[in-house]
Amino acid sequence: MRIGVIGASGYAGLELLRLLAGRSGDEVVLITSRQEAGQKLTELFPALAGLANYDQLRFVEPAALAGQADVFLLAAQHGAAMVLVPELLAAGAKVVDLSADFRLRSPEEFALWYGLPHAAPELLAQAVYGLPELYAEKIKKAALTANPGCYPTSVILALAPVLKARLLDPSQVPVADAKSGVTGAGRGAVLSNAFCEVQDNFKSYKTVGHRHTPEMLQELSTLWGQQVKLAFTPHLLPINRGILATVYVKLAPPPSLEALRGLFLDFYREARFVRVRPLGQSPETADVRGTNFCDLALFHDRASGLFKIVSVIDNLCRGAAGQAVANLNLMTGRPEEHGLLLPAVRP
Amino acid sequence: MRIGVIGASGYAGLELLRLLAGRSGDEVVLITSRQEAGQKLTELFPALAGLANYDQLRFVEPAALAGQADVFLLAAQHGAAMVLVPELLAAGAKVVDLSADFRLRSPEEFALWYGLPHAAPELLAQAVYGLPELYAEKIKKAALTANPGCYPTSVILALAPVLKARLLDPSQVPVADAKSGVTGAGRGAVLSNAFCEVQDNFKSYKTVGHRHTPEMLQELSTLWGQQVKLAFTPHLLPINRGILATVYVKLAPPPSLEALRGLFLDFYREARFVRVRPLGQSPETADVRGTNFCDLALFHDRASGLFKIVSVIDNLCRGAAGQAVANLNLMTGRPEEHGLLLPAVRP
Amino acid sequence: MRIGVIGASGYAGLELLRLLAGRSGDEVVLITSRQEAGQKLTELFPALAGLANYDQLRFVEPAALAGQADVFLLAAQHGAAMVLVPELLAAGAKVVDLSADFRLRSPEEFALWYGLPHAAPELLAQAVYGLPELYAEKIKKAALTANPGCYPTSVILALAPVLKARLLDPSQVPVADAKSGVTGAGRGAVLSNAFCEVQDNFKSYKTVGHRHTPEMLQELSTLWGQQVKLAFTPHLLPINRGILATVYVKLAPPPSLEALRGLFLDFYREARFVRVRPLGQSPETADVRGTNFCDLALFHDRASGLFKIVSVIDNLCRGAAGQAVANLNLMTGRPEEHGLLLPAVRP
Amino acid sequence: MRIGVIGASGYAGLELLRLLAGRSGDEVVLITSRQEAGQKLTELFPALAGLANYDQLRFVEPAALAGQADVFLLAAQHGAAMVLVPELLAAGAKVVDLSADFRLRSPEEFALWYGLPHAAPELLAQAVYGLPELYAEKIKKAALTANPGCYPTSVILALAPVLKARLLDPSQVPVADAKSGVTGAGRGAVLSNAFCEVQDNFKSYKTVGHRHTPEMLQELSTLWGQQVKLAFTPHLLPINRGILATVYVKLAPPPSLEALRGLFLDFYREARFVRVRPLGQSPETADVRGTNFCDLALFHDRASGLFKIVSVIDNLCRGAAGQAVANLNLMTGRPEEHGLLLPAVRP
Repeated sequence: MRIGVIGASGYAGLELLRLLAGRSGDEVVLITSRQEAGQKLTELFPALAGLANYDQLRFVEPAALAGQADVFLLAAQHGAAMVLVPELLAAGAKVVDLSADFRLRSPEEFALWYGLPHAAPELLAQAVYGLPELYAEKIKKAALTANPGCYPTSVILALAPVLKARLLDPSQVPVADAKSGVTGAGRGAVLSNAFCEVQDNFKSYKTVGHRHTPEMLQELSTLWGQQVKLAFTPHLLPINRGILATVYVKLAPPPSLEALRGLFLDFYREARFVRVRPLGQSPETADVRGTNFCDLALFHDRASGLFKIVSVIDNLCRGAAGQAVANLNLMTGRPEEHGLLLPAVRP
Repeated sequence: MRIGVIGASGYAGLELLRLLAGRSGDEVVLITSRQEAGQKLTELFPALAGLANYDQLRFVEPAALAGQADVFLLAAQHGAAMVLVPELLAAGAKVVDLSADFRLRSPEEFALWYGLPHAAPELLAQAVYGLPELYAEKIKKAALTANPGCYPTSVILALAPVLKARLLDPSQVPVADAKSGVTGAGRGAVLSNAFCEVQDNFKSYKTVGHRHTPEMLQELSTLWGQQVKLAFTPHLLPINRGILATVYVKLAPPPSLEALRGLFLDFYREARFVRVRPLGQSPETADVRGTNFCDLALFHDRASGLFKIVSVIDNLCRGAAGQAVANLNLMTGRPEEHGLLLPAVRP
Repeated sequence: MRIGVIGASGYAGLELLRLLAGRSGDEVVLITSRQEAGQKLTELFPALAGLANYDQLRFVEPAALAGQADVFLLAAQHGAAMVLVPELLAAGAKVVDLSADFRLRSPEEFALWYGLPHAAPELLAQAVYGLPELYAEKIKKAALTANPGCYPTSVILALAPVLKARLLDPSQVPVADAKSGVTGAGRGAVLSNAFCEVQDNFKSYKTVGHRHTPEMLQELSTLWGQQVKLAFTPHLLPINRGILATVYVKLAPPPSLEALRGLFLDFYREARFVRVRPLGQSPETADVRGTNFCDLALFHDRASGLFKIVSVIDNLCRGAAGQAVANLNLMTGRPEEHGLLLPAVRP
Repeated sequence: MRIGVIGASGYAGLELLRLLAGRSGDEVVLITSRQEAGQKLTELFPALAGLANYDQLRFVEPAALAGQADVFLLAAQHGAAMVLVPELLAAGAKVVDLSADFRLRSPEEFALWYGLPHAAPELLAQAVYGLPELYAEKIKKAALTANPGCYPTSVILALAPVLKARLLDPSQVPVADAKSGVTGAGRGAVLSNAFCEVQDNFKSYKTVGHRHTPEMLQELSTLWGQQVKLAFTPHLLPINRGILATVYVKLAPPPSLEALRGLFLDFYREARFVRVRPLGQSPETADVRGTNFCDLALFHDRASGLFKIVSVIDNLCRGAAGQAVANLNLMTGRPEEHGLLLPAVRP
């Protein structure tokens, strides 16, 4: 299978190339980057030297893409994919879009949150939200998958079982307090992501109004069958990779922790990449570093009566490139976990 | 004034010595440590060499303390202070206890959470909770101050104005999602605090049932005049110093953000060490690194209807040693900020 | 092939299990740990849950090992392997020892540097120093391989080509200034490796007399054919993994940089895991994080007349577990790189 | 005294403002920044809110400076100071320049290394190299002080005693392997200093030809009375502040370590900010974090015959702003240590 990676000079692109390096039967035949066009891949990313065909690849401009690959993984900024995708689909290619362009079903919502009109609204209906635990069957048949955002991945997987089981007590607005590593902000020269601004430091950012909010509300409401409210706050951790979301919910009737864990185990029975932790364990972001796993743990807080669900993923792997490869696997008839059963690099 | 630091070989002890190094009129005459008795201070902590009288000090066993100093700062483990304090007070000394021994007014609560009976329950009534923003006048007259815990300091200062103003809507249990640097765990050889277990990693710990819970509930309920519920979760940040607490509350009637900020400014009008941030700013732990400040910021989340209050302190300074020195200042007739107006070391 | 990992509860053991997780044809059938005997592997290391047969494994005491596996990887402290190895070899097993026990050819040197007499001096002659770039042919036939130390791996690979080519000018003592991540110190509760002692900090340690010194001198002198002098200093980096060694040498006659690079390329022509960087590039430890690569770069310093050779490896992978797996591959008739062509997890 | 800080929006500027915050008798009356002109100081740097007169200050363009202050601290990029200084001196102000503009005595050397002609070569003769341990008497009388570079400060203080004592054996080129925190690169949006490029990573940079080379050679040669050779390599540490230089020298005749330490103690007898460590101690960058100290330790390496001198400073404080304040102190008739006896913030 010939794979094209669009927007390959960012961190998600680099992570895609890491994950695609060892796969039998696949070959990355095309890498694009506006900024780095002409540059050799292994000069920009010497870490990839000596692997796969990577010493032979050069970045090219993202032009005349149709026909150059069988599958396209789009890791460009939002706004770019919706311009490129129609011709790729028209040429018969399969597409996994890692940007936000095809995640929201409503073009109005997209315009509202991303500040530009949607360029391909007619494709929104056929785009499948690429969260395999919820939509594997649809993904298998999809030509276009909208790879979920990193925060939504961590939060939706934490809440899906209780929403589906209709255990949520809406008298208490759920809280999702999420903390992310810095790769979530992408590869770029930005003062607020400079080492000296982040190291030995911690802050919330976009404390209200983060763009992943509508995506979470859309998917959570679909799961629940009615409109969900959610208080979501992103924070910036001084680590490279990892999201930990601490989710606070009131459940009615309040289950025992054992029963709640049983519910989660049951919900994720087929899920190769969700690990429901034994009661008492607290997952750590390092447990999933470099992997496609989402680890979940459940707690009951007697002091407040609330339940706490802790969810960890690697924002760059499970929250972006790893999930994209899982979607690529499903869309091309392979097992979801093909090439993805990597242990965490820990410590 | 002759100062004795009990339990001086831990991080809180080291921080006390940092803050006491440059003060005119004061002298540290006694430093104790069971582990390091006999050792020269500047051999254990070469960073203190060449400052004040520190090259002359040696750690001694904590025995026959009464009379050796005018003021004692106790930075020992919980359980130690309640044994030492009666004789110190009897000898006329003033005491600031940085441990948990005198924070809870109920000896039963203490026994429940700390697993040992209280050795000096008769002193609990006279011990003043050493949060200057709430109790400055009492602290000025106190012989024994119970220095607040680090998490409670950050959470209580975030919630005090809304509780006092009776704005809290109890239909929504408040959530305090707190993240702390590793110095909060003390100076010790513990695998879970080893560099390779913490660096490039993030986790919650004691996800339910952390010992600072009763202290927060006690003080918040006192402020509100009725029993507060609170969902509190501590997390471990890969940084040395700093706590950031993200507090989620429902307010009724919901004030405008400007009005809420006005309320905070008013509440903290006299508070030298609380900085209510301009609307829109997000405080960062590095802004208060090495200082006694608590920075607060206020947000209204339209998506959920909740308000978010972000609070940052340096857990080792404001959350321990700095607050102790502020209490020492007040107890000995000096301005709270004497020797404490240090700018953050940033970056 | 049945593989036993002895001393599996340390970081080198964890790294071995990471690298052995995905291998077809191999199975880890035995993991030992004195400290963790009885404990389930995935309770101690939840990061390994859901991979290979790891959910079924429990640590056992390291007793009656012979016959339980075909190949043994020994990741115990020095002093342990030399007691266990004789019976394993006698039972026909192959052994890769990651400790220092079989690296020095002289039992007297061993006793001098490690402070205990060698328990199996008769095996020293048959143990092969497991640096595949130098000794691949011997390793293929070996029953016992002494896996090199992390610092020696980085320094020997930097100097081997110039020593072999007899370019070293001994009028200038070579300097190897090396900096290592903290995993090199192992998994243990030690104050000097506590997060707060290492984070945002840097120091040299064992500034003179580090135990890897005799190993380097032995191998470098063998390469050169005469006794090498070397000034070696280890430093502790606030990172988990990685060694960077900056090596300063005087070369006579001084080659052009291009010629020197040609010499290196030639020397490492067959070496799958040495990447000689294009002139001008500076390798970074993150380029090899989680991999078995050693990246080398060459510089000529006009200000001093010296040449600088910069060498980076992952101390835990190439400097320990990865190299052990490469040796296991060679000893069992497989290509050196079998299962080891992993791209770095970067960032 | 009215103080003006030119280039106040960078990290050196921020550090100057930290150090100048608590000084009696001094007031910062002017802060300039081309980028931030018009901006309130405490909006850019909220960490400074509530301190000194800082809530009242705004950045202004660096124009018509003469007469606005009595002393100017110039923390601008190299090339800017040499344009501004003549008029400031002409107006009778005293100037400490933190840039490289007045460090090299030869305008040709300056042009060679910095790529632009010197704009005020006539001032080079009167500029004093602001290393108080070497030039305190000259600094006291100077109108213009050239504040040393961070690397040169660490290396010159390590070598000065042996050069002055003529102990250096020139048959071995000295090596200065230096490692610096990231603040040394300044406050700017540069990809190579982005968090994800530096965190959990380590590299050399400008491995040959760093611009601090001529400054070191100039001062070391002056101390020695003849031309010094030096192999110098800078590296980038994943920490905010701190330089550690490991210096390798051959001494003839080789002194005992005790004698060498005696020589250093004697050389630095009057130096308030140099701490020669007891034999056996290894200084750590955290020991001097936020301070003006330079800690030195001495080692004799039997394996190579060389001596190792380890030197640590805080590159931003001692290597820039702290040293500038020490020079300001000396130039204005105050003790060098006025306002600078700060203990390290550790951990």
